Amino acid sequence: MIHRSSLLNPKNFREICKKSRFSSHKTADRGDFGRLEDKDLSAFERICGSNNVLKDDLDPYNIDFVKWYKGKSSCVLTPESSEQISALLRHCHDRKLAICPQAGNTGLVGGSVPVHDEVIISIKKLRTHYNLDQNSGILECDAGFVLQELDEKLAQDGFMMPIDLGAKGSCLIGGNIATNAGGVRLVRYGSLNANVLSLQVAIPDAQGTLLQLGAPLRKDNSDLKLQQLFIGSEGQLGLITRCAILVPPKPKSVQLAFLGTKSFADCCAVLRACKKMLGEILSSFELMDSESMRCVQENVALESVLDSKPAFNLLIETSGSNPDHDAEKMENLLSHCMDTGLATDGVMAQSGKDSELFWKIRENASLALNLDGEVIRDRLKGSKAKRVVTFGHLGDGNSHLNVTAEQFDQEVYDRLYPFIYDWTASHNGSISAEHGIGRLKRTHHHKLVDKTKQAINSEIKKAFDPKGILSPYKMID
Amino acid sequence: MIHRSSLLNPKNFREICKKSRFSSHKTADRGDFGRLEDKDLSAFERICGSNNVLKDDLDPYNIDFVKWYKGKSSCVLTPESSEQISALLRHCHDRKLAICPQAGNTGLVGGSVPVHDEVIISIKKLRTHYNLDQNSGILECDAGFVLQELDEKLAQDGFMMPIDLGAKGSCLIGGNIATNAGGVRLVRYGSLNANVLSLQVAIPDAQGTLLQLGAPLRKDNSDLKLQQLFIGSEGQLGLITRCAILVPPKPKSVQLAFLGTKSFADCCAVLRACKKMLGEILSSFELMDSESMRCVQENVALESVLDSKPAFNLLIETSGSNPDHDAEKMENLLSHCMDTGLATDGVMAQSGKDSELFWKIRENASLALNLDGEVIRDRLKGSKAKRVVTFGHLGDGNSHLNVTAEQFDQEVYDRLYPFIYDWTASHNGSISAEHGIGRLKRTHHHKLVDKTKQAINSEIKKAFDPKGILSPYKMID
Repeated sequence: MIHRSSLLNPKNFREICKKSRFSSHKTADRGDFGRLEDKDLSAFERICGSNNVLKDDLDPYNIDFVKWYKGKSSCVLTPESSEQISALLRHCHDRKLAICPQAGNTGLVGGSVPVHDEVIISIKKLRTHYNLDQNSGILECDAGFVLQELDEKLAQDGFMMPIDLGAKGSCLIGGNIATNAGGVRLVRYGSLNANVLSLQVAIPDAQGTLLQLGAPLRKDNSDLKLQQLFIGSEGQLGLITRCAILVPPKPKSVQLAFLGTKSFADCCAVLRACKKMLGEILSSFELMDSESMRCVQENVALESVLDSKPAFNLLIETSGSNPDHDAEKMENLLSHCMDTGLATDGVMAQSGKDSELFWKIRENASLALNLDGEVIRDRLKGSKAKRVVTFGHLGDGNSHLNVTAEQFDQEVYDRLYPFIYDWTASHNGSISAEHGIGRLKRTHHHKLVDKTKQAINSEIKKAFDPKGILSPYKMID
Repeated sequence: MIHRSSLLNPKNFREICKKSRFSSHKTADRGDFGRLEDKDLSAFERICGSNNVLKDDLDPYNIDFVKWYKGKSSCVLTPESSEQISALLRHCHDRKLAICPQAGNTGLVGGSVPVHDEVIISIKKLRTHYNLDQNSGILECDAGFVLQELDEKLAQDGFMMPIDLGAKGSCLIGGNIATNAGGVRLVRYGSLNANVLSLQVAIPDAQGTLLQLGAPLRKDNSDLKLQQLFIGSEGQLGLITRCAILVPPKPKSVQLAFLGTKSFADCCAVLRACKKMLGEILSSFELMDSESMRCVQENVALESVLDSKPAFNLLIETSGSNPDHDAEKMENLLSHCMDTGLATDGVMAQSGKDSELFWKIRENASLALNLDGEVIRDRLKGSKAKRVVTFGHLGDGNSHLNVTAEQFDQEVYDRLYPFIYDWTASHNGSISAEHGIGRLKRTHHHKLVDKTKQAINSEIKKAFDPKGILSPYKMID
């Protein structure tokens, strides 16, 4: 099973909010959470200083990355330490104020913005502690660092982050962990379950307890691994304030190639060949179909590097410790693919500039689709679906299916939903390979998850968050 | 931080049971669990057949691997399917009968045998389902397969298990997962948190519910990752009945070398050199000090392969996809270590027979110490500690410190406990890097773990096991 649906571009379906048959797209009741009063604002100011209690111009915090959801929070807090977060949670617990934790606000399923008037607690100013142990390759740092920034700091000591994704310039490591972000190098370095060793979290109990979960060690079997539960918990259990991550050495040699193929079956055959011939140096295997390549060309003005305009484009990366050995392996692979006719066309990056361009093409696939929406809305013409494209992480067995339309079209919508979720489920796929549940997929999640498991999820949430004030209306009831 | 204590050989301290200051070594109260009656045995026979309800010759199930603990169970169940396990748990829940889940019974901390008269449920006959998806490299199988057996089955299709340890010939994969076994190749393939994708578990609630946790996919962010919670849960939450594991391709080339060094600092320097020069092909980095090598020679009659009798012996393994490249990398490393004087002596395995011998030496380190105990008891002489040895997984930052004595000696004991736990904690180490908590380390675990976290652990246990009948008296209260 290689082909998975994990995202339907929500921006182009924003009208669905009004018309959907799914209650997840309707707004859940606000519930009996406390209402923010002046005394709360004063308490927040006492805890983290008035410069960290924002009341105006909150759109960047209330509106999600794909601009589908808009919350109504009137207060954003930007604490500067774990202890401040603990005190804020203590206060919110006491007053039963609902909280929306927020990191880089780059999520694609509406998980990072409020639904009603939740107080937003941003972790973006948690960025003091940074310590790399070069013997063990373990990085301990605060949760508010930007992913790319960490990667650049590590590079100075010959290490790298084990995770990389398009949003790296603005997503925060705490958010990556809370959403179990996957990205383009999981095929080599593994998931965050593999690499996150310990977490410091603040939970919204009566004390706003700061918990140290796990230890910054590669092996530690001295307790239940609660830190693993926080990976992908989407801010439902606590706020991640600090983390310890296993970071690999930065490779001495990196190679990048674009290959064109005629069919999806050939893509899978190339993947099998890569696993055999590149073996341990394969670090990325990314797919873009011809439609997503065309979309990048039209909307971001990046030219394809393959002349043949193939049905499928594969971006293949290797990372290794010996440039000569790595080059030989890659050349063997490319010869094999061309000689056997698996690839119709291929080109290797010859310079850092080439590599940058190759990755830019792949990373702009998502952005280009959003621009597609913008361009289309200007045209004002009602019609059917405009594009059906797929791109993503074939090496890990997941792909991003996107459908864009000139404007919302009920017929297109009805053909897709709930067909796409049912089809995915019937093929033993996941309705969310890597973007999570958030608000977008809440109802589907609830439909698919076993009732006993839902009850266990709720009990677990209650153990960390007794009043249910953290990220209400989202994944867990 | 590289040097960790993770095990004090309990066999040689079996007298501690009687004299210990730690309540973990005393027997906990039996509590108000139901008492096994004839009607229970009849129900068990109806559920899984009379041949799977054992009442005689139960010592192999009641006594742990290191023969320190002996439970008093009068009934061992060996169900043959998940459904039978579910029905057994339903019955035990109804009657509030305490249960001791058991896999290969190879654990080293007394976690796998009963404390009182718990009913033992063995998973060893869960061995029907086996399915390998060669495209994705995902193995789905029942939990009762022996680790080595799985590795051999996978080898037929060019794959291997990502985990390997000395007990591989008798430990079961379900037990490996329940104890988060580490072993000798974690440095390359990562922990079970990295490789276990999904679990089927049976929980002891009113229905004996079978839960599917996660999906056999490399990426799946569609729920809380409860499967991660079961990895290392030591049978406290439910019985693991089936699993999906990511299995790597079997390497085309494997190389093995023993290196001798003068000091522990030189061992660390060799490790850093290996990470740089062997990079992605390093698959094992194991340490044996001179005492553990001598112990193997004396008790298992295996000769060291290094003439110089060095202070430290390092076993270094590479696994890769290109024999020429791999040999060149290994040769470069060995030259570097000899030229710089980091290594005093070195030898590479030249044949499969050599490799077998090299690994046999390392894997017998633990067994040899147990024999040490046997030999010593025969001598009947009371005296002080006989050996202090360390061996283990330096590449992962953990090592097995073992102290043997001719017989139990209070003075030796008092010098060690609680000093060793305090010392480890003060150096930010783990009191159990890979062997778990079980019964042996329960009190220390409870002393070290934050009270709020203990309460959360208990709430989580309650969510899966409402009557607390699974593995009572062990890790979680």
